Amino acid sequence: MEIGAMFEQIPFAAELGIEFDEVADGHAEGRLPLREEHSSNPGGQIAHGGVTFSLADTVGGAAVVSKSESVSPTIDMRIDYLSPATADLRAVADVVRSGASVATVDIEVYDADDHHVASARGVYKTGGQGDETPWTDGTDVEPANGDGGQRSEE
Amino acid sequence: MEIGAMFEQIPFAAELGIEFDEVADGHAEGRLPLREEHSSNPGGQIAHGGVTFSLADTVGGAAVVSKSESVSPTIDMRIDYLSPATADLRAVADVVRSGASVATVDIEVYDADDHHVASARGVYKTGGQGDETPWTDGTDVEPANGDGGQRSEE
Amino acid sequence: MEIGAMFEQIPFAAELGIEFDEVADGHAEGRLPLREEHSSNPGGQIAHGGVTFSLADTVGGAAVVSKSESVSPTIDMRIDYLSPATADLRAVADVVRSGASVATVDIEVYDADDHHVASARGVYKTGGQGDETPWTDGTDVEPANGDGGQRSEE
Amino acid sequence: MEIGAMFEQIPFAAELGIEFDEVADGHAEGRLPLREEHSSNPGGQIAHGGVTFSLADTVGGAAVVSKSESVSPTIDMRIDYLSPATADLRAVADVVRSGASVATVDIEVYDADDHHVASARGVYKTGGQGDETPWTDGTDVEPANGDGGQRSEE
Repeated sequence: MEIGAMFEQIPFAAELGIEFDEVADGHAEGRLPLREEHSSNPGGQIAHGGVTFSLADTVGGAAVVSKSESVSPTIDMRIDYLSPATADLRAVADVVRSGASVATVDIEVYDADDHHVASARGVYKTGGQGDETPWTDGTDVEPANGDGGQRSEE
Repeated sequence: MEIGAMFEQIPFAAELGIEFDEVADGHAEGRLPLREEHSSNPGGQIAHGGVTFSLADTVGGAAVVSKSESVSPTIDMRIDYLSPATADLRAVADVVRSGASVATVDIEVYDADDHHVASARGVYKTGGQGDETPWTDGTDVEPANGDGGQRSEE
Repeated sequence: MEIGAMFEQIPFAAELGIEFDEVADGHAEGRLPLREEHSSNPGGQIAHGGVTFSLADTVGGAAVVSKSESVSPTIDMRIDYLSPATADLRAVADVVRSGASVATVDIEVYDADDHHVASARGVYKTGGQGDETPWTDGTDVEPANGDGGQRSEE
Repeated sequence: MEIGAMFEQIPFAAELGIEFDEVADGHAEGRLPLREEHSSNPGGQIAHGGVTFSLADTVGGAAVVSKSESVSPTIDMRIDYLSPATADLRAVADVVRSGASVATVDIEVYDADDHHVASARGVYKTGGQGDETPWTDGTDVEPANGDGGQRSEE
C-alpha cells in the first residue's frame, strides 16, 4: 500500500478527514477539510490549534516514512501559530535532515483563504527500534505518536 | 460561567470529550477518555500525538485564562512524547511565568496506566489585543488556537 | 546609531566577535568568526552549540528590533542542529509574524564550508513593556536575553 | 576522567568558566560565574541569552552522557526565558526519558539572586552513531553541539 493511503487509515487521521495528495522522497502534502466540530470557537469557524497540529504531525510523519521506510514515531514537535485558520487546511512537509536514528522535518500549514496558519518543526525516530517498538510488542519504552501506528509491512 | 465549563464547550474539545476537574490561579487539570477513533494504530489503542497535544493545549489554555482573565490564544507550543498512551489521558497545567503580554505554561500528560505520556510547554498571549483579536473582529493579525475561542464575557 | 552597530556593542556579542552585514525591515544577517575557544572539541574545531545559538539569538533579535523599534527580549527559542560547524558562521534571520506584543522569527545558520549548521525559531517581545522592563528599571518581571540590552534611544 | 571534568575541558565551556558540582545517573549540576563580558547590556550586568543557553546545553549534555556513556550531541533544544539573570548562574539537569537512540532532558537555570532564569528542554543522541560521528571521523552527517566534543574513551 502507498504511504499516503496507509496514513489516511490511521483512525484519528480518518476521523479528522485528512487526505494525502503527495508523499515521496522526504516530501509530503495533505489536506484537512475544516468542519464545525474542528472549531475553537462556539460561534464561528476557526480551527482549534489541536486540529492544525494533528495535520502537521501526520503529514510530517508521512514525509519521514517516505525516506526512512520504517516506523517513525514523533519524538518532539514545536508549532508556531501565525494566523487563524478560517477555511480548509493544507500542509506541506519536507525532511530537512535525515540520519540513521532521527529525522528533522519542517511543516508549513495554510488555509484555503491563503492564510499562513502555522509553521512546525518536528523530530521523528527513523531507526534503531528493533523489537522494542511499542507498536510491535506492546512495551512502552518509545514515544507514542500519530505516525507510528503504521507498520512498514502493512 | 466557570472557565472549565467554558472550555468544555469549545467545539473541538467537546468532540474529543475533554472534561475539566480543576481550573484556578494558573493551575488546571483535565481528562480525555481514550476512544477507538483517537488511535494512531488501526490494530490497537494508542493515542495519536494530535490527541495528546490537543488535550495539553486546551488544559494549558485554561490555566492561562484563570490567571489572565482574557482571551489567550496560543503563540507556540512544544511537546515531547515520552511513552505511548494506552489508556485515558489526564493533563496537569501550571503557569510558570505570567506577564502583561504573554504567559509561559508547563503541561504534563499521563494515562490511566500510569505512563508519563508527554511533557509540553507553551506560550500564550495574555493581553494587548484590543480590538484586533480575530475572535472579536475577524481580522487575522493574531494566531488561532484552541483556547482563544472563549471570550471572557461569555 | 544603526541597529547592527548597536548589537555589535552588546558585551557578549562583542566577546564572540559577532558582526552585522545587514539589518532592515525585519531581515538581518550577521557573522561570527570561528575561533579555538568556540570549539566543543578539545582536539578539533567544531562550533559549540552555545556559540551557534548565541549568533542565532543575536541576529534574530536585530531582525525584530528593525521592525518593532523597541526593546525586544527573547521569550523562547528552539534550535535544531543539522550538521557540525567547522568554519566561520553566518546567520540569516527573517521575521515571519509581527504583532503588537510579540514577533516570531526564523533564523538559518550556515558555515563557510557550506554546511547548513542549524535552524532556529524564536519568539520575542515587541511591546507592552512600559516601565517594567528590567533593562530600564531593574525589576525582574521580564525575560533576560541577548538582544534586549540595547535601548532604542542609544 | 570523570564526566564533569571532561566537560569542563570543552574549550567553550572553559572559556565561559563553567564548573560542575555533580554528574551521575542522568542528573547533573553546574555553575557559571557571571562576568562583564557575558552581559547583554553595555550599562549593566544581565546575562545574555546565549550564556544561559550555553550553560543549559552543557549541563544537559553531561546528564545524558552520565546515562548513555557515549558521545551525545544535541539534536534540538528549546529554552524559555523566565526572568533576567543578574548574578552567577546555576543549572540543574535531569534526563526524563532515555532510549536506545535519543534522550530527553529538562534543565532549570537559576541565578544567585534566586531568580528562576530559564527552563530548557533538549533532545540528545545516545547511540547508533558508529563510525559516522563527526567527532571521530570528520564526516558531517551528525549535528554539532557543545557536549559531543568528548569521546567516551578519553
